[in-house]
Amino acid sequence: MVENRRPIWIKEAIEQVMHYKKRGSCERISLDDCDGRFLAQPLKADHDVPPFNRSPYDGFALRAGDTIEASRNNPLAFEVIDEIGAGSVSHYELRSMEAIRIMTGAQIPRNADCVIMLELVQEKKHSDGRPYIILKRPLREGENISFQGEDAQLGTTLINQGEKINPGIKALLATFGYNEVPCVTPPLVGIITTGSELLQPEEDLVPGKIRNSNGYMIEAQIARAGGQHKRYGSVSDQFEDLLTIVKRAMADCDIVITTGGVSVGDYDYMPMVYQALGAELLFNKIAMRPGSVTSCAQKDGKLFFGLSGNPSACYVGFELYVRPYIRYWLYSNKPYLKKITGKMKTDFSKANPFSRFVRCKLSIENGHVYANPVGLDKSGVVTSLAWADCLAILPGGTKGFTVEDSADILLLEDQEGSEDPWREPRFSKL
Amino acid sequence: MVENRRPIWIKEAIEQVMHYKKRGSCERISLDDCDGRFLAQPLKADHDVPPFNRSPYDGFALRAGDTIEASRNNPLAFEVIDEIGAGSVSHYELRSMEAIRIMTGAQIPRNADCVIMLELVQEKKHSDGRPYIILKRPLREGENISFQGEDAQLGTTLINQGEKINPGIKALLATFGYNEVPCVTPPLVGIITTGSELLQPEEDLVPGKIRNSNGYMIEAQIARAGGQHKRYGSVSDQFEDLLTIVKRAMADCDIVITTGGVSVGDYDYMPMVYQALGAELLFNKIAMRPGSVTSCAQKDGKLFFGLSGNPSACYVGFELYVRPYIRYWLYSNKPYLKKITGKMKTDFSKANPFSRFVRCKLSIENGHVYANPVGLDKSGVVTSLAWADCLAILPGGTKGFTVEDSADILLLEDQEGSEDPWREPRFSKL
Repeated sequence: MVENRRPIWIKEAIEQVMHYKKRGSCERISLDDCDGRFLAQPLKADHDVPPFNRSPYDGFALRAGDTIEASRNNPLAFEVIDEIGAGSVSHYELRSMEAIRIMTGAQIPRNADCVIMLELVQEKKHSDGRPYIILKRPLREGENISFQGEDAQLGTTLINQGEKINPGIKALLATFGYNEVPCVTPPLVGIITTGSELLQPEEDLVPGKIRNSNGYMIEAQIARAGGQHKRYGSVSDQFEDLLTIVKRAMADCDIVITTGGVSVGDYDYMPMVYQALGAELLFNKIAMRPGSVTSCAQKDGKLFFGLSGNPSACYVGFELYVRPYIRYWLYSNKPYLKKITGKMKTDFSKANPFSRFVRCKLSIENGHVYANPVGLDKSGVVTSLAWADCLAILPGGTKGFTVEDSADILLLEDQEGSEDPWREPRFSKL
Repeated sequence: MVENRRPIWIKEAIEQVMHYKKRGSCERISLDDCDGRFLAQPLKADHDVPPFNRSPYDGFALRAGDTIEASRNNPLAFEVIDEIGAGSVSHYELRSMEAIRIMTGAQIPRNADCVIMLELVQEKKHSDGRPYIILKRPLREGENISFQGEDAQLGTTLINQGEKINPGIKALLATFGYNEVPCVTPPLVGIITTGSELLQPEEDLVPGKIRNSNGYMIEAQIARAGGQHKRYGSVSDQFEDLLTIVKRAMADCDIVITTGGVSVGDYDYMPMVYQALGAELLFNKIAMRPGSVTSCAQKDGKLFFGLSGNPSACYVGFELYVRPYIRYWLYSNKPYLKKITGKMKTDFSKANPFSRFVRCKLSIENGHVYANPVGLDKSGVVTSLAWADCLAILPGGTKGFTVEDSADILLLEDQEGSEDPWREPRFSKL
């Protein structure tokens, strides 16, 4: 059964997929467990930070007006009338030529308007034991005070929804009392690997067979994108088995991925599966390499991706079409791989009518970005995926890159994302 | 108790810490659970990839010599004598003008030396039903064959020890039958937060107090570095309580971190704790901002870090001194934050005798790298940490950056790391 498949442009395929985009639901996650999750609501300051004027140093709180005349030749004495540990509040009000000992982070006492660091005064005691300090320099009003709200003001949106929680965001969540954090429930992605040639990792190699690597790879890609997975095992190229499992996965999961079985061979049952499901085929060929046989169908708005059985094609198909769907689900407004421009580190000569995503390793030299192709560039290759951290886009119809050529580069490990890397006019033919 | 602390150079502090570096032990982790873990052994190819000559396409295996005369005007017919599904092996040996139907990934049959894609031939049948194909172009020997070992040869080291397992590496582990993966046991890092001013995230704000954010932040930083943590709670500035907990943490953990309590105030007991433990103080002041009060002590080769209670100082202190210790533990030979050079996106004027780590957001414009300072640059600030993905290094003794100035930049989210970013001569004064 040879089909004549019509390749569509990359941009068109992405639009087809994203036509079915949806947002996940929100759940409350303990602050302890929220690392790497995605915010379902913007993070707003529910109080000023700092919440009060405070001292950034250990030292003494003073009134700047009292210090004007202080100098090396005219040291001034201040009576130390109280001391404030961090977390405490002084009940005193500073009067003329008085000081209050203050710890880092403590609230500035009433009437004080500056702080001198501990190291910059001499501490002394009167004969009756009462402490005083000697100051040899004047202070400006406001000197060494962290003012209420200078870091963040009540009501400010500090982090947008859809952001992945990193250590700095976690610190903010703690600061604002998010004992429970509103996170997006990740989409559950069902994975079915197909192909009679596949062995499990624990099995010994036998002639004609290879081990299943795509299933494990896709699981790690799903995790990196922010989704969770459910494994439906490896199915031989038997139509009935495949259909039964696909039906089960479509019922259980938010997204279903198969790898393998999307080529044009006699043993490839995916078109029959789509038909038996009553699913609408969105596309089954894209003008790209690797991954031209990436397919997608929808049933009742649920997406069913058929990724290539070739590791590199499978990998690229996931990153270009499945990842943005997952990231949008996670409330991101920049669901696509981040795109930057840089230069090619070496020649890469390969003529191709279709646009090509060249697995590369990024380097930065003297402030300039370079993409360096890694390993063999064939769709069946697996090693180069382990080394690549970006994909250089070689537009279709060209003969390849020459060293120092400018290239658009998609970043694989980046968390920031792009709004729509395909919107630019020069991508109209991708 | 005012101490005169002698600030040491950053480079010296790092050397002091790394003098005590050690490698963790190795454990076997199921392939299912190895995402994000660190390889304890190099990943070597235990067989050629592909393990046999195979077809990258669905099509027909032929002998190139038979096809020389084929053209549009001279179509040639080949008898189809067998078909091979992926995972199967043909028992036939091709003879003159014969073809074998072959699926993607299947082993090339004996005597065949090229493959023609299914789409490029016409499939026909003799009157008795036997299939044959019509070929209208010649093929080169080796055309459309993925050769045994072309992706990776038996014995090649593909991934070094100490690498973090990403989706591509996971695919390789599956390919080479790593049903269990040798991973480094991560170091257990004990965290003690100190300070009477600290509330837990679930507590309401009261005058003079702030919520504990450092503990949660450090936990997320430990996770990003590859370690695991154990929480010893928040201790008020009471010496006996603190000592008891520090002793327990030193017994349980591989590394201990306290935040807060490292400044020079009366309520700061860390020096007394070091003494009571019989620990050797390595340093308690570094010529840097933020984080100048970062301290480190060792007892029996185990490190005990005292990070500042100020969020930004705590954050930077962790990334510069604790992270490399953790990454080396995880077998990395590039344990330091990756350092690149770029330009400043804006002015940043702040004179300082000490080197300053300016929280920035990285951007790439037309292939050029820029660092853009984010938020307030004060050590007590927490918001800018959530936005920063890099630290621009402003060398001590300068007056700040002017827009377009060149700067060294440390990447916070990168996984690759640097061997030794401080080795260069211009960092002799950092």
